[in-house]
Amino acid sequence: MAEWLYGRHAVEEALRAGRRKVYRVLMAEVAKGPKVGPENRLQQIEAEARRRKIVLERAPIARLDTLTRVGNHHQGVIAEVAPFEYSNVAEVVAMCKAAGSMALVLILDSLQDPQNFGTLLRSAEAAGVTAVVMLDRRQVEVTPAVVNASAGAVEHLTVCLANNLPRAIESLQEAGMWVYALQKEEGALVYTDADLSGPLGFVVGSEGKGVGRLVRERCDGALQIPMVGRIGSLNAAVAGSITLYEALRQRGALTFGT
Amino acid sequence: MAEWLYGRHAVEEALRAGRRKVYRVLMAEVAKGPKVGPENRLQQIEAEARRRKIVLERAPIARLDTLTRVGNHHQGVIAEVAPFEYSNVAEVVAMCKAAGSMALVLILDSLQDPQNFGTLLRSAEAAGVTAVVMLDRRQVEVTPAVVNASAGAVEHLTVCLANNLPRAIESLQEAGMWVYALQKEEGALVYTDADLSGPLGFVVGSEGKGVGRLVRERCDGALQIPMVGRIGSLNAAVAGSITLYEALRQRGALTFGT
Repeated sequence: MAEWLYGRHAVEEALRAGRRKVYRVLMAEVAKGPKVGPENRLQQIEAEARRRKIVLERAPIARLDTLTRVGNHHQGVIAEVAPFEYSNVAEVVAMCKAAGSMALVLILDSLQDPQNFGTLLRSAEAAGVTAVVMLDRRQVEVTPAVVNASAGAVEHLTVCLANNLPRAIESLQEAGMWVYALQKEEGALVYTDADLSGPLGFVVGSEGKGVGRLVRERCDGALQIPMVGRIGSLNAAVAGSITLYEALRQRGALTFGT
Repeated sequence: MAEWLYGRHAVEEALRAGRRKVYRVLMAEVAKGPKVGPENRLQQIEAEARRRKIVLERAPIARLDTLTRVGNHHQGVIAEVAPFEYSNVAEVVAMCKAAGSMALVLILDSLQDPQNFGTLLRSAEAAGVTAVVMLDRRQVEVTPAVVNASAGAVEHLTVCLANNLPRAIESLQEAGMWVYALQKEEGALVYTDADLSGPLGFVVGSEGKGVGRLVRERCDGALQIPMVGRIGSLNAAVAGSITLYEALRQRGALTFGT
């Protein structure tokens, strides 16, 4: 089952990453359609498609609209691709062992909203995580909307589907990793007070419901981000991103050229 | 001109903050409409409306749909309110002087997307910023969509409209504040290497275009968040949130009970 990725970042990163098969790229006939913004990214996409010998067709913008049904979010460029390929727990454990003390895994427990999901995947890729682990049911999958919301970042990420999240966490722990739930609760450490410098996993729960009980029970502890204002919580993708970057800071990874 | 706020957090925080006039609250006749989730937040809204002597009416869910036109994002509760009241630069400068070394101002340069805008305002409130300053043209205003995306946080925030952003920055600088642009550029400091412990402003630019030239020239310097992966940038709201929380960390504000 092929699917249509849409948006300039999404298409460009899918081409750059080269992880999944790209069957063809469709670009709007700009001269005939509405103006679609700076041309240089489109030129980069054209050059990348040529380099990889991928068919690039010009099409009326209405055809892109019909194929994607996302309004103008396609930004004049779409790509027909093979489905996203997921990793598995055994592969992630092997990658973490190879990464040693720099291993960093983001675990997603029932994050619902594709926009939040994509935003957090974008941060995870920017933070250089080893892998992302998520449940393969009741969960947003890596759909074209998620790829778009991640600005294409997920094309570079190792995303693992686990059919049992507590068991996946256990496998990571057996490989020497410490796993925290990002959750406001009695006894949770302030995230800047915890030692985040070793091989580590974080669980981010859904907005509203947080981390599930069985998943939480399997974790080694909980971290929380203090609220200094009058509201009770941060956006889940933001909270996950802040914690990932605090881990990088503690690991001394926030320098140029790393 | 009254407007309709929608969503449980948005309505609840508007009531709790008590900043702008709430004319009435409309709640869906749950028994007749689709299930709208946990009831306790709706009960809190009812109690808060009663305490503040605000009219609360039950209405068919179709009426809420028609009044807001946001699909099911109203979550069964909407409120008719007076327009959002903005602050001005003189007030913000006075607030910053009162806040002393803890003054922290978020400056938004042409952030376009209401979702990102709301998410960043939510983080700003959670981080206890003194105020948010934004341009009063070409800019997303604090619409009901933004209030919703902020989970109601913006109802507690001081938001200032400035008709000239470089001049507003200059006023903050004259009050003793240091103002950084959050921008990837030659010579920009890694955000964790900069001293963010004094009275401070950050400018967050739009996705894609970044911080405008005239605004950038007025700033005292630039900060950047290193990218460890293969993509080039973070979501703008995430980048702003990470920097705000790094400032809190450096100020020793990330403890309980502050």
